[in-house]
Amino acid sequence: MIFEIINTGNELMLGLVLNTHEQWLCRQFADRGYIVSRQVAVPDTAPDIEQSVREALSRADLIIVTGGLGPTSDDLTRDAIARLLGKSLKEDAAVRAHIEKFFTDRKRRAPESTRVQALVPEGALVLSNPNGTAPGLAMEVRPNPFRSGQAASWLVMLPGPPRELKPMFADFVMPLVERSFPLADRFVCRTLRTSGIGESVLQEKIERLMKPFLDAGGELGYCARPGQVDLRLTRRGVDAEKLVGEAEAVLRRLLRAHIFGTNDETLESVVVRLLTERKKTLALAESCTGGCIAHRLTNVPGASVVLRGGWVTYANEMKQKEVGVSEAALAEHGAVSEVVARQMAEGARRAGESDYAIAVTGIAGPGGGTPEKPVGTVFIALASPKKTEVFKMFNPWDRPTFKDVTTGQALNQLRLRLLAD
Amino acid sequence: MIFEIINTGNELMLGLVLNTHEQWLCRQFADRGYIVSRQVAVPDTAPDIEQSVREALSRADLIIVTGGLGPTSDDLTRDAIARLLGKSLKEDAAVRAHIEKFFTDRKRRAPESTRVQALVPEGALVLSNPNGTAPGLAMEVRPNPFRSGQAASWLVMLPGPPRELKPMFADFVMPLVERSFPLADRFVCRTLRTSGIGESVLQEKIERLMKPFLDAGGELGYCARPGQVDLRLTRRGVDAEKLVGEAEAVLRRLLRAHIFGTNDETLESVVVRLLTERKKTLALAESCTGGCIAHRLTNVPGASVVLRGGWVTYANEMKQKEVGVSEAALAEHGAVSEVVARQMAEGARRAGESDYAIAVTGIAGPGGGTPEKPVGTVFIALASPKKTEVFKMFNPWDRPTFKDVTTGQALNQLRLRLLAD
Repeated sequence: MIFEIINTGNELMLGLVLNTHEQWLCRQFADRGYIVSRQVAVPDTAPDIEQSVREALSRADLIIVTGGLGPTSDDLTRDAIARLLGKSLKEDAAVRAHIEKFFTDRKRRAPESTRVQALVPEGALVLSNPNGTAPGLAMEVRPNPFRSGQAASWLVMLPGPPRELKPMFADFVMPLVERSFPLADRFVCRTLRTSGIGESVLQEKIERLMKPFLDAGGELGYCARPGQVDLRLTRRGVDAEKLVGEAEAVLRRLLRAHIFGTNDETLESVVVRLLTERKKTLALAESCTGGCIAHRLTNVPGASVVLRGGWVTYANEMKQKEVGVSEAALAEHGAVSEVVARQMAEGARRAGESDYAIAVTGIAGPGGGTPEKPVGTVFIALASPKKTEVFKMFNPWDRPTFKDVTTGQALNQLRLRLLAD
Repeated sequence: MIFEIINTGNELMLGLVLNTHEQWLCRQFADRGYIVSRQVAVPDTAPDIEQSVREALSRADLIIVTGGLGPTSDDLTRDAIARLLGKSLKEDAAVRAHIEKFFTDRKRRAPESTRVQALVPEGALVLSNPNGTAPGLAMEVRPNPFRSGQAASWLVMLPGPPRELKPMFADFVMPLVERSFPLADRFVCRTLRTSGIGESVLQEKIERLMKPFLDAGGELGYCARPGQVDLRLTRRGVDAEKLVGEAEAVLRRLLRAHIFGTNDETLESVVVRLLTERKKTLALAESCTGGCIAHRLTNVPGASVVLRGGWVTYANEMKQKEVGVSEAALAEHGAVSEVVARQMAEGARRAGESDYAIAVTGIAGPGGGTPEKPVGTVFIALASPKKTEVFKMFNPWDRPTFKDVTTGQALNQLRLRLLAD
């Protein structure tokens, strides 16, 4: 089965926006056992759209085209594809009514320009759009004049805005794909997320015992990013569920607490879950991460139940006044030191009246490094009911990566402590 | 001139990583007057790479291929392209020495597998890689067997890691492009970034007076994202600089303080710059943004000079204890109220001993909304030496977008105040 994606839009070719559809759509397919074999981005001119669709039709069983279904003059996808396939466009009464209602609900009159969005190529299925005005369109191109043997292809057009594309894909396209392109075999995919272990050490640790899974046709993919390595297990066949389960058990035995979650879990969502389950609270004292730990934790819905709050103690006076760092410690050891990190964590736990507290102090750069404490030096302290631990790390990356990696290390230490307590 | 980009990598087709190269490379070209007409992502198998390179060679004057130059078994770009073009690979002594030195500097022995990275297709230029081991490669395909009239094409291969690709592109590829494909005309591009005004209102405001610039061949592009609209002015020709300058002057007159910066400036970088120039300091009291304002400000190098620090006052007790919100205000008006926002800002300014303070309190959702205060309700307070202002906003988006948009609004209010004071 050959699947291809075509993303249209001048904003992509000018580099004004990041193409997040590519990753999102590829991931949706891959997690269900379908691999996208090609993704193309082209400008939103009729010749570019026509050429890329014609080429894709010559190869692929399924083609997803994103963008260009809106009401403005540079929305040409619907038109270009209808012309390419020699289909006429006809106004669809239900779509027209939906568009009018969409505007009436918002106490506005539907602009004349939106009428074009109710046009549907003959024979196309309409994929309704509860989050916007442009419907998606799906058509089976049969016979397919561009393909050898005229073999049929499915051509699906989706609106560009992610808020509209994503639910439409989940509600209509994925079911259509599973119906039209049933997998010969059962397919199972599971991603295990690890932290605190590098890719090469990890590989060495698991290689030998994963050999049977691989020899039997399973696949194991590594995806490393700063501070985190994901392991992706996939297997096809009647026994897929059982075999992936066994491989997962092997990995869990070998990697133990390095595995922090599965599939879409993040370190922050796991930490919020663990704190919630244990009815424990957290406070933060951040210097060099500058609010990044708080920001990531508060991205998790429900964080307010466990996060008491935090301090961003950039100025030394704030370290003293707010979380009780002593002048002596600052004078003797400097703000970036084990002693100060410890005082910050214990002070945050006390002032925040929380069960746990994380503190970080370090040198994010680009400036501020010294030979003894180069840029990237960081102390992470973790105060808990039983004790306070301090971890010295070295993260000599650019500033945003430094903040992100340090945040991950701090959350991971808290996670390990919660599991141990 | 036809430019195309080919991104190779199974991790792209599986949706495991976001393709940031596409945007970055397209933007580099576009800002210098070159438009990429097609971008393709393919798996890292030899047939896929060969097919996509062959197709691109049949159309394009310049092709950038990213990824697949590493030492492992799935790094096939170098090989596949050499085979496609019938070129032999020869070890380059200088590259070999660079790789060995790279490892020696890190007190490690160069693994045998890295030798393959020293192989260079005959006739190719080597683009040295100070940030990694794999060099880039550039070759002029002349004659080009895949193109009508055998017209020559440039084929450039770059390593996948962004830390290696970006400096190599800036140092070697862009100069090569400007030498090999000089623009017939001078090209000028300027992006003006606006905040606090929606796309349609903005368009209405500027349309009439921008007509002369457009009629004379200038281009004006809009790029809207939550809370921000970018205006991109471009013009070709001998007078390009002058005409873009004039158009910019018109826009500045019409939009005034809505324009917060140019090109790569962000709201946070502008705020840090304005505070630094005025020798003023800032403190933050964040509830619903949960550290996002602090996080974005501390992404700016030098933020430590102006940011005293902040509080993430998630729990009501922290609002009282840390930034002096009164129990009466909480009881009478609730945590999400104008009165509490004002007390938070004034308390943060006092406790942070800063010139300015921002406070936000609101309902990020998905839970916590009421009929009177639905999800998305937020109060932004700004305390300054002269007065405290409170702005009520309604940002009914998903949680991450809510935090991001609210942060932008808060930074923008501070920016406007700094300009007025």
